[in-house]
Amino acid sequence: MKRKIRRPFFVVNPKSYLYGEKTYRLAEKADELAVRYDIDIFFTAQHVELAEIKKRAPHLIVTAQHMDGITPGRGMGAILPEALKEYGVEATFLNHIEHAMTVAELADTVGRAAELEIMTIVCADSAAETAAVAAMHPDIIVCEPAKLIGTGVTSGDSYMKETDNIVRSLSPDTLVLQASGISTAEDVYNAIIRGGADGTGATSGIVAKEDPLAALEEMIIAIARARDEIEKSKGR
Amino acid sequence: MKRKIRRPFFVVNPKSYLYGEKTYRLAEKADELAVRYDIDIFFTAQHVELAEIKKRAPHLIVTAQHMDGITPGRGMGAILPEALKEYGVEATFLNHIEHAMTVAELADTVGRAAELEIMTIVCADSAAETAAVAAMHPDIIVCEPAKLIGTGVTSGDSYMKETDNIVRSLSPDTLVLQASGISTAEDVYNAIIRGGADGTGATSGIVAKEDPLAALEEMIIAIARARDEIEKSKGR
Amino acid sequence: MKRKIRRPFFVVNPKSYLYGEKTYRLAEKADELAVRYDIDIFFTAQHVELAEIKKRAPHLIVTAQHMDGITPGRGMGAILPEALKEYGVEATFLNHIEHAMTVAELADTVGRAAELEIMTIVCADSAAETAAVAAMHPDIIVCEPAKLIGTGVTSGDSYMKETDNIVRSLSPDTLVLQASGISTAEDVYNAIIRGGADGTGATSGIVAKEDPLAALEEMIIAIARARDEIEKSKGR
Amino acid sequence: MKRKIRRPFFVVNPKSYLYGEKTYRLAEKADELAVRYDIDIFFTAQHVELAEIKKRAPHLIVTAQHMDGITPGRGMGAILPEALKEYGVEATFLNHIEHAMTVAELADTVGRAAELEIMTIVCADSAAETAAVAAMHPDIIVCEPAKLIGTGVTSGDSYMKETDNIVRSLSPDTLVLQASGISTAEDVYNAIIRGGADGTGATSGIVAKEDPLAALEEMIIAIARARDEIEKSKGR
Repeated sequence: MKRKIRRPFFVVNPKSYLYGEKTYRLAEKADELAVRYDIDIFFTAQHVELAEIKKRAPHLIVTAQHMDGITPGRGMGAILPEALKEYGVEATFLNHIEHAMTVAELADTVGRAAELEIMTIVCADSAAETAAVAAMHPDIIVCEPAKLIGTGVTSGDSYMKETDNIVRSLSPDTLVLQASGISTAEDVYNAIIRGGADGTGATSGIVAKEDPLAALEEMIIAIARARDEIEKSKGR
Repeated sequence: MKRKIRRPFFVVNPKSYLYGEKTYRLAEKADELAVRYDIDIFFTAQHVELAEIKKRAPHLIVTAQHMDGITPGRGMGAILPEALKEYGVEATFLNHIEHAMTVAELADTVGRAAELEIMTIVCADSAAETAAVAAMHPDIIVCEPAKLIGTGVTSGDSYMKETDNIVRSLSPDTLVLQASGISTAEDVYNAIIRGGADGTGATSGIVAKEDPLAALEEMIIAIARARDEIEKSKGR
Repeated sequence: MKRKIRRPFFVVNPKSYLYGEKTYRLAEKADELAVRYDIDIFFTAQHVELAEIKKRAPHLIVTAQHMDGITPGRGMGAILPEALKEYGVEATFLNHIEHAMTVAELADTVGRAAELEIMTIVCADSAAETAAVAAMHPDIIVCEPAKLIGTGVTSGDSYMKETDNIVRSLSPDTLVLQASGISTAEDVYNAIIRGGADGTGATSGIVAKEDPLAALEEMIIAIARARDEIEKSKGR
Repeated sequence: MKRKIRRPFFVVNPKSYLYGEKTYRLAEKADELAVRYDIDIFFTAQHVELAEIKKRAPHLIVTAQHMDGITPGRGMGAILPEALKEYGVEATFLNHIEHAMTVAELADTVGRAAELEIMTIVCADSAAETAAVAAMHPDIIVCEPAKLIGTGVTSGDSYMKETDNIVRSLSPDTLVLQASGISTAEDVYNAIIRGGADGTGATSGIVAKEDPLAALEEMIIAIARARDEIEKSKGR
């Protein structure tokens, strides 16, 4: 059964920046922080090392960066859902602007993931695309205007609120990840508290820092702080 | 201003089967039938001959088979919306399985079409894809399982009803075109009366017939008959 | 029969910058210059207006910006070679970085063009890609590093010579178009005389100028001057 | 340093048919046969299990089914060459019809593979595509008309000879893999002896058989027999 994600969650997404030892160290650190701060952390890696990450970091939600909507059979060079599942992969990103999918491919792949209980984290680049993706009912939607990727510029509270409303109205069970321009612990805190996101995450905000492990720790502390404040305000 | 489409409408879609004189004859026949039976007929053609079709068949809704969501500027080899508009093109197909678009491209292109008041006829290949497309609010959705294209097999009443319901609930102003396997005048009549479609249309059901002009005329008579029955039943 | 291109030739490529009246004026000017300076000029336009350009500018080599390698039949939204031919299109660009083709698509399309005697102008973005394209024996290869498109920076004499040598050795009958960063009449002259190109051309070097018609005329004068010098040096 | 491939070689390519235990058993069998019959065997698998295959089957040439031509950095969902190398992957298929690449992507990826000493096995679907691919100088070219994939029909001696000649003339160091319709041990033998291929391989000829391990063993015996005959005829 798919695990139930606790909010706010965090995504560590090293894309193609890291591999081998550097990925292991980041994953092991994230694993330790997931336990210490009791936060659900998704961790992506190159497909070739997902099985190893699963062994080394058992508390992370090991996540593919892409998956294809195929069934076992043909599909040379494709990423087979069943094979990911076999090695403990629990989630997959889909439709990132650097790996854009056709509407038909995305619909098929979200369907296959649901069959296999693999969580889907689907990227959308505009308000109109957010609506289309929400209508497919993925587990998580990433609301990130493509032109801001890697820029360190956040998408702004109004864009966060607009896309948030679209998702809530079309697919209330889908969680919202606001991830554009998250480069500091403060950005992490703001995406949750001011942007109202269910989760956030970073790539260059971690891997391009002088000390990626320390940058990650600060972000996890920030998200735990946001979580504690939300709970406290609810408690009152 | 975009013209208001009257139901039931019909689409003549010769894809890449015809060009030149053969297209002219089919377009001129369709133009004559549109007037005689008072039916809104969309007519597609190769981009290179859309301007000529517009001149020869002024009562048709001249329709591109694809358009790109670009603005004037770069875009080598792309189909510029403004250029189509300039030559009287009033509508465009998008996301046909033979020209699949990414979610981002389709969202952008539906947006550009709306700005220029070009009608969008967007194809969807499954129930999940139909939902995603409906969330973008095109003018018309084509509900046609890809595996049936060109087979002469219709998609069945239950698939027609399921996709119809999806569109009505997510985008009530969007019209539904049921077009799979329409090869006879009877299929045309059934898609409207039994399938509940707002419109229908054909490719090989016309161009692969021995006498395409006669096949077209029978289909237009069938759709006019369906229209008259619907109006009569409402009148009662 | 395909016409024999005389060197040096010139390509006016407005991409998606222009349409309608502005394209007509540029095409009519190019037509007049082709006659006055006795230069072979390729002229591209949006597919929807190629037929009109052919009528208005009979001395130009009317050129599509893209074509698909299909045969009449299916191919929704595709550009059918036979349809282009029908309206007097004599050449087509292929594989521009803004409309990249797979190896299989490009091989098929160059083959279809040869069958129909449509000239092929194929873009290549690096020395390795130039070799691959040369092995398909198109009529013309465009050697233009993609990162320089639209920058006004030329690719440099050494890149021009390297790619020129690759083409000469693999496909001696293929002409070479050096087109990166051609923004002035001087660049035109230099591409021919110093770069050794068989032809050159421009997009933003014309359409982004305050007076595109004047900019075009200066470039055609420059290419005629280059031609005259080459002929004089041969005559001696 | 890249290993030198001995002819005739064999490729076991399970595409997306197998994963987990079934792949392990096939890989372990192939490993044992590679040693016993002294044959170079390439073995492909899902990216997620390439590292595990490398550990379990150290005598195989572990081969990816696709790789992207990127450098470490951005590239969400892409297959990073450095990451494959890190886990002992020695070769990669490229441009299979089920994962077609643009000319620019393929040229870049063959270049990146050469930098990292990863062997490239590039698919070509027609004589014209074979020429284009040969001009990029991959290690191995797969000459397989796309329409025959999975059909059990071989491409015929004349197609094998034509493509063989193209490769020999444009890239003499590139090996030729003839792989269409290899479904029996006899087909394996014939591809080498009558087709003159440097290597051959199979997908459904193995995985769709009742006993895939036995089918594989028969094929390896056939290729060893072909090898022995070639050596004997040279010895005379």
